[in-house]
Amino acid sequence: MTKFYLLFALSLSLFLFAGETLAVSRAGEPIKPVPEATGYDEAKVELGKKLFFEPRLSKSGFISCNSCHNLSTGGADNLPSSIGHKWQLGPINSPTVLNSRFNLAQFWDGRAKDLKEQAAGPIANPGEMASTHELAISILETIPEYRNSFKSIYGTDVISINEVTDAIATFEETLVTPNSRFDLWLKGDDKAINANELAGYLLFKQKGCISCHNGVAVGGNSFQKFGVVKEYKDTETLGRFNVTQKESDRYVFKVPTLRNIELTAPYFHDASTWDLNKAVTEMAEHQLGVKLLSYEVKKIVLFLRTLTGEQPKITYPVLPPSTVDTPKPDRM
Amino acid sequence: MTKFYLLFALSLSLFLFAGETLAVSRAGEPIKPVPEATGYDEAKVELGKKLFFEPRLSKSGFISCNSCHNLSTGGADNLPSSIGHKWQLGPINSPTVLNSRFNLAQFWDGRAKDLKEQAAGPIANPGEMASTHELAISILETIPEYRNSFKSIYGTDVISINEVTDAIATFEETLVTPNSRFDLWLKGDDKAINANELAGYLLFKQKGCISCHNGVAVGGNSFQKFGVVKEYKDTETLGRFNVTQKESDRYVFKVPTLRNIELTAPYFHDASTWDLNKAVTEMAEHQLGVKLLSYEVKKIVLFLRTLTGEQPKITYPVLPPSTVDTPKPDRM
Repeated sequence: MTKFYLLFALSLSLFLFAGETLAVSRAGEPIKPVPEATGYDEAKVELGKKLFFEPRLSKSGFISCNSCHNLSTGGADNLPSSIGHKWQLGPINSPTVLNSRFNLAQFWDGRAKDLKEQAAGPIANPGEMASTHELAISILETIPEYRNSFKSIYGTDVISINEVTDAIATFEETLVTPNSRFDLWLKGDDKAINANELAGYLLFKQKGCISCHNGVAVGGNSFQKFGVVKEYKDTETLGRFNVTQKESDRYVFKVPTLRNIELTAPYFHDASTWDLNKAVTEMAEHQLGVKLLSYEVKKIVLFLRTLTGEQPKITYPVLPPSTVDTPKPDRM
Repeated sequence: MTKFYLLFALSLSLFLFAGETLAVSRAGEPIKPVPEATGYDEAKVELGKKLFFEPRLSKSGFISCNSCHNLSTGGADNLPSSIGHKWQLGPINSPTVLNSRFNLAQFWDGRAKDLKEQAAGPIANPGEMASTHELAISILETIPEYRNSFKSIYGTDVISINEVTDAIATFEETLVTPNSRFDLWLKGDDKAINANELAGYLLFKQKGCISCHNGVAVGGNSFQKFGVVKEYKDTETLGRFNVTQKESDRYVFKVPTLRNIELTAPYFHDASTWDLNKAVTEMAEHQLGVKLLSYEVKKIVLFLRTLTGEQPKITYPVLPPSTVDTPKPDRM
């Protein structure tokens, strides 16, 4: 025990020393603060917000974008996989919409090049919202308030999926989470994180986690194989291979953001764990070939919890009512 | 045609005359303005709001109170009946939560005496949220932020369904919609409604609709048989009979509020129409034995649309994350 405490004290002083030297060089850190979302067309953001919460974009009139990317719960649904039309269970864990604007592409396999392209997917996916773009638009067209909004924002009398997804994507671009404690530290506030959290960050870098989880979103900016060093147990989800058909893309996924990670359990594309400690342990093993000690895992997790930022402040939208001409929801 | 116009001009002048006399006596109108919700314990309302939007109160972790009483869409779900656990379809149209505090009892059949009693129902209803009170509480107990809130608001270390439903009911009590155009008119603003809308209100009184739809909520304050004069087609939904087992309560329902009625299609307990004109026509026929003329229906509907009030301004809650000890959602 004495040995352990001596080692611990030594490590701690090393970390504190490291912390001091870092203070002068944080601009060079591989993780960058989340910028505020500013300069957006407010009317477009408001329209996009309504559409994001709009259950009438689904066949049943029950499922909205927010059903699976719930802004109350870290921009995800905290389920192993999402519940879609007629209670179909999705094939993969729903990624958070928060900070998704920083992703190099959308979906785990990156099959959508941006948020606009992504937004078109679930509306027409038979296992998700199960509508069609035509039906969704024919609903919006019969609602005067929507027609007027599209007219005034896009100058068009004809609503198309193009404007619908543009508005949703614009709203989603505003869904950033600045001013996490870690970002405050990055910006120079020494007291924003404590010694253990800082130690966790240093371990995160030393062990190599940082090689994929870096940048503004602490991830989201590269595709990587799940199972670089040690094969992962899920060999059925092929990831980016489905998009490119390249053998080298088998089991390759977009690296998920670690921003707000404490809010978005369960973890991994297959939601195989709800425990962040276990997720960190497995990642180190499969991706880095490193067997982390339990105290290292704990410190890294303490660091990860400092990545929770200010959640978007959303005034819950009031949606305009349907008219007698509006196509009716179909629950079956 | 000349005769018609003469009659119309005569009626109009009568209405205008009636309008003038009303101006001095609106305090005596059978409909009363919706009061603002004030004086509530803010911390309790905030906790109640979180619980109202809390999907972890359901077995699946997907359904919250707001799923069926959506505050984006008039406090209801705009579906014939609600979608519950595993996509079970409910037996009856979901009533609005807005202004529900003014109801003499809750549910269509009044089986819950107040909002607190009501809130306990859907959580444990196998066709709705499909949880149990025990499970819901064991989830809340493992989340420190919830534990602390209950402790600070109710002074208890032990969360029970009693505090959970008290907080939800308190939040729901704040969900009122004051300052509708009609209420402004009631309070003396002559220009808040136009001549046709006023004519609609006078018809609403003259034809007898007012005998059941009166008071603050324009309904909600009595139980009445659906089919007083002419039997209604739905003979399977027994209404209040299920609560009292009295033959005289067969097909008796709580009179629904007409506040925000334009937001809460489809109409009637069986959602048999999406068209407010048709709903008014049928009501007059079944309840009053009156065959309304088409222009009368139109005017009454114009009046009904003036009952849409200010919708509650809700800041979408950020829910505290689960911990490793939190029971996991079960979608099956």
